[in-house]
Amino acid sequence: MSNQKFNVAVVGATGAVGEQIIGLLEKRDFPISKLKLLSSARSAGTVIKFKGQDIVVEEATPDSFAGIDIALFSAGGDVSKEFAPHAVRHGAVCIDNTNAYRMDPNTPLVVPEVNPEMIEEHVGIIANPNCSTIQMVAALKPLQDAYGISRVIVSTYQAVSGAGSKAIEELVRQSKEVLDDHEVEPQILPVGALPVKHQIAFNVIPQIDKFQDNGYTLEEMKMVNETKKIMKDETINVTATCVRVPVVYGHSESVYVELKEEYNLDAVRKLLENSPGITVVDDPTVQAYPLATDAAGKPDVFVGRLRRDLGHSKGLNMWIVSDNLMKGAAWNAVQIAEIIASKHSVHA
Amino acid sequence: MSNQKFNVAVVGATGAVGEQIIGLLEKRDFPISKLKLLSSARSAGTVIKFKGQDIVVEEATPDSFAGIDIALFSAGGDVSKEFAPHAVRHGAVCIDNTNAYRMDPNTPLVVPEVNPEMIEEHVGIIANPNCSTIQMVAALKPLQDAYGISRVIVSTYQAVSGAGSKAIEELVRQSKEVLDDHEVEPQILPVGALPVKHQIAFNVIPQIDKFQDNGYTLEEMKMVNETKKIMKDETINVTATCVRVPVVYGHSESVYVELKEEYNLDAVRKLLENSPGITVVDDPTVQAYPLATDAAGKPDVFVGRLRRDLGHSKGLNMWIVSDNLMKGAAWNAVQIAEIIASKHSVHA
Repeated sequence: MSNQKFNVAVVGATGAVGEQIIGLLEKRDFPISKLKLLSSARSAGTVIKFKGQDIVVEEATPDSFAGIDIALFSAGGDVSKEFAPHAVRHGAVCIDNTNAYRMDPNTPLVVPEVNPEMIEEHVGIIANPNCSTIQMVAALKPLQDAYGISRVIVSTYQAVSGAGSKAIEELVRQSKEVLDDHEVEPQILPVGALPVKHQIAFNVIPQIDKFQDNGYTLEEMKMVNETKKIMKDETINVTATCVRVPVVYGHSESVYVELKEEYNLDAVRKLLENSPGITVVDDPTVQAYPLATDAAGKPDVFVGRLRRDLGHSKGLNMWIVSDNLMKGAAWNAVQIAEIIASKHSVHA
Repeated sequence: MSNQKFNVAVVGATGAVGEQIIGLLEKRDFPISKLKLLSSARSAGTVIKFKGQDIVVEEATPDSFAGIDIALFSAGGDVSKEFAPHAVRHGAVCIDNTNAYRMDPNTPLVVPEVNPEMIEEHVGIIANPNCSTIQMVAALKPLQDAYGISRVIVSTYQAVSGAGSKAIEELVRQSKEVLDDHEVEPQILPVGALPVKHQIAFNVIPQIDKFQDNGYTLEEMKMVNETKKIMKDETINVTATCVRVPVVYGHSESVYVELKEEYNLDAVRKLLENSPGITVVDDPTVQAYPLATDAAGKPDVFVGRLRRDLGHSKGLNMWIVSDNLMKGAAWNAVQIAEIIASKHSVHA
């Protein structure tokens, strides 16, 4: 790694993912020359501590990015669409955590354990995949390399933090209301921008993001399309059911994989144990399997409940859990930033 | 229906399912001559109201069943194994809500919407299937008849009430502890009889019942084996991942079905709308789909999120929700009792 330091901007610094990104930049001792924290006008003026210093959050403007080398965006798709081109114009590399550029053919969609080589292909913007996709492809990649994958059938159990801090507050508030026998008045979930709201406390909601014309939600289609792009295989058939559950941090996924070749279960377990970023937790004799509460705050993708489909010799069930704000968002973005920092001399 | 009235015994009268059974017998005005409420010694003496009358719960003994025509068991497998043979000896028909006899080849395993004809085959005991199986096969049966089914891949979101009233208390207690920032000390879930406990509040647990040697839990194997028996087709391959979620009443299921023939999605929707016991809730334009909170207390099996697998023309995704204590237990048992009462003149 060069000794170069970088001017870094975090857009959406006061959001749930932005906070995690700032925390990781500090914890990882990212080679920062200057850290610029940006937000909407509403949150500008907030003071955030970074390595003992107070940094005042500024309102993002087209000229905020002058001199910035790396800009990490997590303030929603509209903000990325508005400001990422300005950051690129100023010479920054953007790592975008929103849906704005993920399916853009010119934008690499990167999970460092899966397709790190795509980082080199960027023309200014690198997209961070959707949280539910990241943890799944991290576990699928070793299987793809070893056996090939013909299809994936996934059902998710997604934490409310994926819908932002207002959704966390809503789960807490509703939970108290139910426990106190008060009436629940849903205000945010399943989708803030849509008219119908449903109770999330002591309930599960089979809708994440808006419905598409094909009957799938956008979240489900992200898993279908992003998986193909990240794994560079248009023939992998993914079908998804995405469900919000009353959990604060940590997405869990029940993933059924049909491999192209016969497999040995012990070999699959070893393969995953030796894969980067994966931690296997899988011992029925001591009731050990990945749990959202255990994954919270950790960077790993946890995999367990590995077992053969008893009726299909190429079918494999697994249970994949990861902190949606960490590997599912902030950590994946910071990993990409670290690779850029180690390989590229931006403004050399 | 004959005008005959029946002597009915409810074993496990003070349990969660027993209470529902008693409530349904009253609400449905079941033709009862005498109602006998039985329990363990611990709960004997409890007074339960039935149609305005106080009934004292008695301890079950081998001779409790003298004169009983229909005995409904829901006090755990060991109690059924001990007492059902005595009930049969006394001439009663037993409807057993436990796992004790479900896979016994001489015992019909009945969901009235699926295989009511099997009721006639009983030799004293009729088994009520597992809750998670009942709601799934109710929705699968019309598809099996119309198209044939080659495989089913199911992931469940199961309510804590399926683990008994102590599990409900545990979810409530843990939820308060988390909200009050107190430490959580799990005591019951995932399996009361096993040493390791996990937090259920604001978490999901991919274990229901004990692990089998093949890596699946007993709950998962029930879905595999009971489905084949109820649907009378050993070739239906079911693979299941059963997960406990912090919901009190109502199991939700993400069910992927691969049919044997091509299908039309509108035809499938109409088929399900016209099927007994099924209520289709499926309108993305108004964010309508089945929810556990809506299903609680109702007898229906709710089906929604109907959509094609975009990569497999015979693949269908659906979301199936039902109250696990109602159709998943008490209501299915009372339905069987009603059919027996209408067709059989027990002790004629």
